[in-house]
Amino acid sequence: MEQNSRLEAASLTPGTVRPGGRTAKVRAAVLEATQEALIEGGFHALNLDRVAARAGVGKTTVYRRWGSAAGLVADLLRDMAEQSVPAADTGSLEGDLLANARLVHRTLTDPRMGPVFQAVIAAAACDEECARALNGFYATRIRAWAPCVERAAGRGDVPVGTDAGEVVRAVSAPLYYRFAVSREPLHEADAVRAAAVAVTAAKAGSFTRN
Amino acid sequence: MEQNSRLEAASLTPGTVRPGGRTAKVRAAVLEATQEALIEGGFHALNLDRVAARAGVGKTTVYRRWGSAAGLVADLLRDMAEQSVPAADTGSLEGDLLANARLVHRTLTDPRMGPVFQAVIAAAACDEECARALNGFYATRIRAWAPCVERAAGRGDVPVGTDAGEVVRAVSAPLYYRFAVSREPLHEADAVRAAAVAVTAAKAGSFTRN
Repeated sequence: MEQNSRLEAASLTPGTVRPGGRTAKVRAAVLEATQEALIEGGFHALNLDRVAARAGVGKTTVYRRWGSAAGLVADLLRDMAEQSVPAADTGSLEGDLLANARLVHRTLTDPRMGPVFQAVIAAAACDEECARALNGFYATRIRAWAPCVERAAGRGDVPVGTDAGEVVRAVSAPLYYRFAVSREPLHEADAVRAAAVAVTAAKAGSFTRN
Repeated sequence: MEQNSRLEAASLTPGTVRPGGRTAKVRAAVLEATQEALIEGGFHALNLDRVAARAGVGKTTVYRRWGSAAGLVADLLRDMAEQSVPAADTGSLEGDLLANARLVHRTLTDPRMGPVFQAVIAAAACDEECARALNGFYATRIRAWAPCVERAAGRGDVPVGTDAGEVVRAVSAPLYYRFAVSREPLHEADAVRAAAVAVTAAKAGSFTRN
């Protein structure tokens, strides 16, 4: 669902930039700086001047290309969406959805990625461009994991006509509910339960399209 | 889960204040003005001076008593939590959880309450006091609806040891996930599915405590 490969790459090898020309390097540096700023201060403290300074990029470039804090967050989300992590393929729906639930749990409780997700959810609640970018990010992740459910339908483990996207959403939803809505601690047991509930309901046909 | 009785009372009878002394009237006016401001501009545009002017209350009072935009939102959430709407008691778990899902759906798609919930979720992502208040709000709502599941356990409709709070969370979670995380449109079918999934999984024992 989520991934933090860019973040991990950045923290393991500071100063590394992804391949590409000058424009790609500037973007990488600015998005790294944006992410660091979100981790430290959240969306409402995100400041273009400080992002530019941290990225070692001219302010004019940052203002011209991203325009606003919301523009930075939206582009960070597009970048995160592009960096796909392959979905699990364990051979069973139980195994695949548990892998998904554990990945979401790990991401949201990660001391660096947790604050990033708090910040992008806040940004989406404040700004329409960020909301669209966050929608795009999850649409990409849902599409990536839907084949787990489609394979289960092919094996006859869930009814034909099961809405794969809805099953994938059902795994994430209880974890995000605690994380961003009811603001309760997230435990690994919550991930295990989320996967089990989704599997049980999917097998019983609760996710078939009407 | 959510309710909008205060909002509805306010829009039906403008100028009405709840019973109580001067302090209670000031609080009611300030929280009404806070809610209106959140509907219009969201959390990041919330401004104490404008709330004071709109409420017809001195700025000094608002600054002294609420201190910040986050203080206003946190108090609004405490006020919302206090105004309990009785949970459903239809005689079946299906009926009760469907009533809950429909209430959540109605609240989040309400043209006035939807923006209020976007704003408080954003506020909670930005501010610790708001996060605690939002947590308190949902804790109150979850406690109010848990008896629906406890009655079902008493009737033998779900296994003994079913975690009632988790079942209630499971009804809300997919609706809030679309509303605040994946930013997808919310349809009544989503509410119907959320309730059905929770009932199916609860009856199958997916919510029993380990």
